[in-house]
Amino acid sequence: MSTVRELALKAKSASRQLAVLDTEAKNEALKAMAQQLLADAETILRANEIDLNNGQAAGLSPALLDRLALTPARIGDMVEGIRQVASLKDPVGEVIESWVRPNGLEIAKVRVPMGVIGMVYEARPNVTVDTCALCLKAGSAVLLRGSASALNSNRALVSSIKKGLSGTAVPVDAVQFVDTGDRGAVDEMLRLNGLLDLVIPRGGAGLIRRVVETATVPVIETGVGNCHVYVDKDADPQMALDIILNAKCQRYGVCNAAETLLVHRSIAPSWLPGAVRELTAAGVEVRGCPETVKLIPGVTPATESDYATEFLAPILAVRIVEDLAQALEHIQTYGTGHSETIVTADEATAAEFLQRVDAAAVYHNASTRFTDGFQYGFGAEIGISTQKLHARGPMGLKEITSYKYVVKGTGQIRS
Amino acid sequence: MSTVRELALKAKSASRQLAVLDTEAKNEALKAMAQQLLADAETILRANEIDLNNGQAAGLSPALLDRLALTPARIGDMVEGIRQVASLKDPVGEVIESWVRPNGLEIAKVRVPMGVIGMVYEARPNVTVDTCALCLKAGSAVLLRGSASALNSNRALVSSIKKGLSGTAVPVDAVQFVDTGDRGAVDEMLRLNGLLDLVIPRGGAGLIRRVVETATVPVIETGVGNCHVYVDKDADPQMALDIILNAKCQRYGVCNAAETLLVHRSIAPSWLPGAVRELTAAGVEVRGCPETVKLIPGVTPATESDYATEFLAPILAVRIVEDLAQALEHIQTYGTGHSETIVTADEATAAEFLQRVDAAAVYHNASTRFTDGFQYGFGAEIGISTQKLHARGPMGLKEITSYKYVVKGTGQIRS
Repeated sequence: MSTVRELALKAKSASRQLAVLDTEAKNEALKAMAQQLLADAETILRANEIDLNNGQAAGLSPALLDRLALTPARIGDMVEGIRQVASLKDPVGEVIESWVRPNGLEIAKVRVPMGVIGMVYEARPNVTVDTCALCLKAGSAVLLRGSASALNSNRALVSSIKKGLSGTAVPVDAVQFVDTGDRGAVDEMLRLNGLLDLVIPRGGAGLIRRVVETATVPVIETGVGNCHVYVDKDADPQMALDIILNAKCQRYGVCNAAETLLVHRSIAPSWLPGAVRELTAAGVEVRGCPETVKLIPGVTPATESDYATEFLAPILAVRIVEDLAQALEHIQTYGTGHSETIVTADEATAAEFLQRVDAAAVYHNASTRFTDGFQYGFGAEIGISTQKLHARGPMGLKEITSYKYVVKGTGQIRS
Repeated sequence: MSTVRELALKAKSASRQLAVLDTEAKNEALKAMAQQLLADAETILRANEIDLNNGQAAGLSPALLDRLALTPARIGDMVEGIRQVASLKDPVGEVIESWVRPNGLEIAKVRVPMGVIGMVYEARPNVTVDTCALCLKAGSAVLLRGSASALNSNRALVSSIKKGLSGTAVPVDAVQFVDTGDRGAVDEMLRLNGLLDLVIPRGGAGLIRRVVETATVPVIETGVGNCHVYVDKDADPQMALDIILNAKCQRYGVCNAAETLLVHRSIAPSWLPGAVRELTAAGVEVRGCPETVKLIPGVTPATESDYATEFLAPILAVRIVEDLAQALEHIQTYGTGHSETIVTADEATAAEFLQRVDAAAVYHNASTRFTDGFQYGFGAEIGISTQKLHARGPMGLKEITSYKYVVKGTGQIRS
């Protein structure tokens, strides 16, 4: 029997104990976990330093090294995150719907834990802690597979988490960690049908594609966001400016940042030059369609592939479109179904945009940056789904549960 | 470009028109479809005869030939089925939840069509018609792949359906049919990421396994049911007898039929011999554990593999268990997470069973045969999910939709 399968078997077995725990018991365990992480902060930081040194030696970019780095403050944030999850409503046991059939059968649709959730993720070690907190609270065991570059940090975090859980009602085996940088282990994990009820990949487009192509267990795709801001002819110019600046510049490396600006032809001459000036002043490189380049000398011409790119960087593609229909067509062609917004004062135009755009989150007069579990009020987020199955958009506790039908009878048989 | 991809592209394009149609328009199209099927009944029956003759020549079993066969009455049932779907509530556009954030953002979680649904199914041609009706009503286009043995029947049905749709608001291209018995076409279909939003396999365990192993698009597994009836020590003897006879014998070839009977040791001597007598009288072959064989001379000994088998036939495995814990362990080991029932007058025992059994549907004092979209009051059924992602148990219209977040602002940006 292989190691990854063994870990999953332990998780499966633990998930059965975990599934029937009450909220109090799970919250106690989360608090113990938080306490232990604080106590182990120094050990964790030392382990992180090994990863950082290895990363530097391997030539990781400063951005990646920053994502990898832990500090006492970041550990404090993780601990605070766990305590927040403890304070959230337990989704398990909720009666989603219930009804009585004419034959007297009482049917209840009851929220239940998923079972064992696999997480395959890159870089940031805080995902290790967030995932454990969210999955345990939602009653599921977890099998973690972080990136090789964070192996020492993740190992130290998991070891502390397990120490925290020991002595609580949550079985220590509910948290399992694939302690190897070997890629074969991921492939094996992705094919543990019957043991893993769900795998969530979190990371870049390459990781997500590899998981989708390899997995035979159910997967929820997350994250890739080629998001658009469409400035309609009836847009309030100042609002449009505020929104594109926020959607593009508030943070570059996130999936809900805007990557392409679409502008209605009739507002372009009056609005676009000023907007490009402000974007450029903010440090953004603008790449424009031929019409944009003609309108604003000095703008770099955009290529077809610019429209298809999730830059995650201070680069913005700009295209002037004839009308709403062309904007919709552009989004349909290049969008990844993540977050799309229209800026307009015309309610009918907005309604058509909101209805026709096929994305997890569609906005009217607001920044795409709001697609986020915390911003939506979920209190937590395990990822943002860009697929249509199971969960779409920000995923909180509820989105990592399943349900079952509980049916009570008095001897009913089927005729 | 390959043929299957071309079909899917057409379906995808049609799905965008279909997604924004109102209920009235979809119902009109369903009624036109029903009308046309009636008008084409003779052509359809002739096509079915070719399949039946081919099937006979190929040595298909009488049971399979019966599943394949169409009659005027069966066509009438399909037509009636379409009309019933037309009368069901349209799930699309339902506001599942809505709330306002402290910053004034209005967030609505709105039910939307899935997009394009692929169906890979075996034998029964009525699945062709049911699937079209359900998917179109739920606003999704459909790509159909029936079995080679029903190729002529399905081709005639699809041709009639498309004729019925022409002249209605539902685009004819919303129904696509993979018109080949070639298996490579299925594999291609299962990897159309970005074009197929969901694939549902309906058929035997082999088909479902192949789909799960091959697909890179999201899949909902359906159907395999190794279901148990557990007769507790506190069971009402007559109720227990009625339920096992119904769960085993009311129909053999269905996924919600019982395949194994578990009996508490303390009720076995008084109850089991009579139950086995009745089951045998009903034509069921009983295969028992050593204790059962000792108790009831003449019973065939059960093998380990009998417990793991979905017989779909008049065969029943019987095992005497020590207590509830052993019953739960047996179900955990051999069950497929479909439907499980306990017969007991003890509420505490029932509650523990209902909570601990991890299955799509868990019953107390009722037959497993009720796991069915019609029996649950959904008015329709596209399959029964045995996975935990997206939908579990009977799937009606709602279960083949997705949702999106529609967010309305007044210029909100993220700080």
